[in-house]
Amino acid sequence: MSGPDAQDFAARLSAAAEEVAGFLDARLGDAARTGEAAWPAQLVAAMRHGVLNGGKRLRPFLVLETAAMLAGEAGRRAALPVAAGLEAIHCYSLIHDDLPAMDDDDLRRGQPTVHVAFDEATAILAGDALLTLAFDLLTDEALALPASVQVELVRRLARAAGAGGMVGGQMLDLAAEKAERAEIDEAGVTALQAMKTGALLKYACVAGAVIAGADAGTVARMENFGARIGLAFQLADDLLDATADATVLGKAAGKDASRGKATFVALHGVEATRARCAEMVEEATALLSPFGAASRPLAEAARFIATRRS
Amino acid sequence: MSGPDAQDFAARLSAAAEEVAGFLDARLGDAARTGEAAWPAQLVAAMRHGVLNGGKRLRPFLVLETAAMLAGEAGRRAALPVAAGLEAIHCYSLIHDDLPAMDDDDLRRGQPTVHVAFDEATAILAGDALLTLAFDLLTDEALALPASVQVELVRRLARAAGAGGMVGGQMLDLAAEKAERAEIDEAGVTALQAMKTGALLKYACVAGAVIAGADAGTVARMENFGARIGLAFQLADDLLDATADATVLGKAAGKDASRGKATFVALHGVEATRARCAEMVEEATALLSPFGAASRPLAEAARFIATRRS
Repeated sequence: MSGPDAQDFAARLSAAAEEVAGFLDARLGDAARTGEAAWPAQLVAAMRHGVLNGGKRLRPFLVLETAAMLAGEAGRRAALPVAAGLEAIHCYSLIHDDLPAMDDDDLRRGQPTVHVAFDEATAILAGDALLTLAFDLLTDEALALPASVQVELVRRLARAAGAGGMVGGQMLDLAAEKAERAEIDEAGVTALQAMKTGALLKYACVAGAVIAGADAGTVARMENFGARIGLAFQLADDLLDATADATVLGKAAGKDASRGKATFVALHGVEATRARCAEMVEEATALLSPFGAASRPLAEAARFIATRRS
Repeated sequence: MSGPDAQDFAARLSAAAEEVAGFLDARLGDAARTGEAAWPAQLVAAMRHGVLNGGKRLRPFLVLETAAMLAGEAGRRAALPVAAGLEAIHCYSLIHDDLPAMDDDDLRRGQPTVHVAFDEATAILAGDALLTLAFDLLTDEALALPASVQVELVRRLARAAGAGGMVGGQMLDLAAEKAERAEIDEAGVTALQAMKTGALLKYACVAGAVIAGADAGTVARMENFGARIGLAFQLADDLLDATADATVLGKAAGKDASRGKATFVALHGVEATRARCAEMVEEATALLSPFGAASRPLAEAARFIATRRS
């Protein structure tokens, strides 16, 4: 990715990341405002470690840009707490996935994971607290959204993140690691990845449309867009694991192959994976055609997802 | 507790427990209805193990009876999915608290805990999925409640269950176990227990009032009632740990003292704890006086909480 569009996109992504991190930083530094009870200092420190770690904030970016595309600057402003809530869910899932009983990772974005920096119990609780916080943020009194929209955002997030979505996908992924490679066919890999990674990316785009008050057709279109970039994201992730090194990635590389983990790369090879990823981006950007120039940040996001280097 | 009131209460509690268990049984057996993705069988089995374990269902009982007291049978019916959602939160917290990295319990209600019956990774994910499911239940399309009520139920649950409530209380409890007994004064113990155990019991009563469309004064009154029975519950729990044996309790007894865990019993002894518990029940039942005979089940619940034997 190069040229002025890509530079604009990089700046826009980075500005949104700062905005979301700033929101979460304030929310996790001002905990006393939510009630009579103070938040335990160690718990807050672990939550902050898991959240304020320099992530790209891709999911909240998609929420903000979809809301902005469909409802302008006001839509974008209204979307910020929802975008932050989604990032809280994403970060909780990383904390729990990194635990010794799960993927057993010591390193995340070049930093010690939460259970390494603190301890396992604190990491489990920090994850639980971030997951719970997301639903607090989606129903905050200060949210400038109708109650019916808040209810829909909560319901869709619970389903995207739960047993039929992200958590279920992680369960299938752990089972797949234990199974023989031959037992997992392409449909199985695709379903697993659609749940584990795709569900939240799809939710990001749907949430932006719901916040904007979009009609059912537009919500469905953004759902399709989200499904395609979700698949592209996972394919790019698999390519990174197969080809990058740990220094660039900020986490252990080559783990998938060494564990016999079911990936598209393992089944079809690097070139076929690159082609499939490009196809997903093409289909995704084609879905944005009704929105004209306003859709440019989302189209850039789709391309970024497929070509990112970490 | 004896006499006809107590017998009525036992039957009523048991009927509500069956109703809530039946609701959760159906919900965890009919997972396909929530979306395109199937719920992984092992995850569902672990969730069912953690939820359908013959619990007393005290928290959902309080939701149902508060709604019934304030809005009759229609209120009670509308409250069922919310009551079930609260029980899902309670059960997730037990699954995570039992983990080796936390309280390390192998036995719960006489059965192997989820990480023993399955494995640690599955237990972590089953807890995450149940926590997430609660917010799905509170915003289900079939819920017969206004969107503004659903938003309030979600917001209050997220705060009761999160870093400033139940999860924060568990964090403080783990820290207290590591600390010297002398470091924790009575105010510290009370604050810890109000968060760890009290917050969900208080939420149960508040949720019933919110579901019933009660005015702010009534909601505050039920909040006070819930806070007092929450304290009575924890005091009774400490008494049970200090005096019962594992056969009756269905879990390890005497753990608090052997671990130097901060409890009211440890600080003030058994008799003072009994007196304080009775005082909480008296204050709680006095708060119900405006509601006359309709408040009898809740008054019985307060007495039950203080005198239960397991």
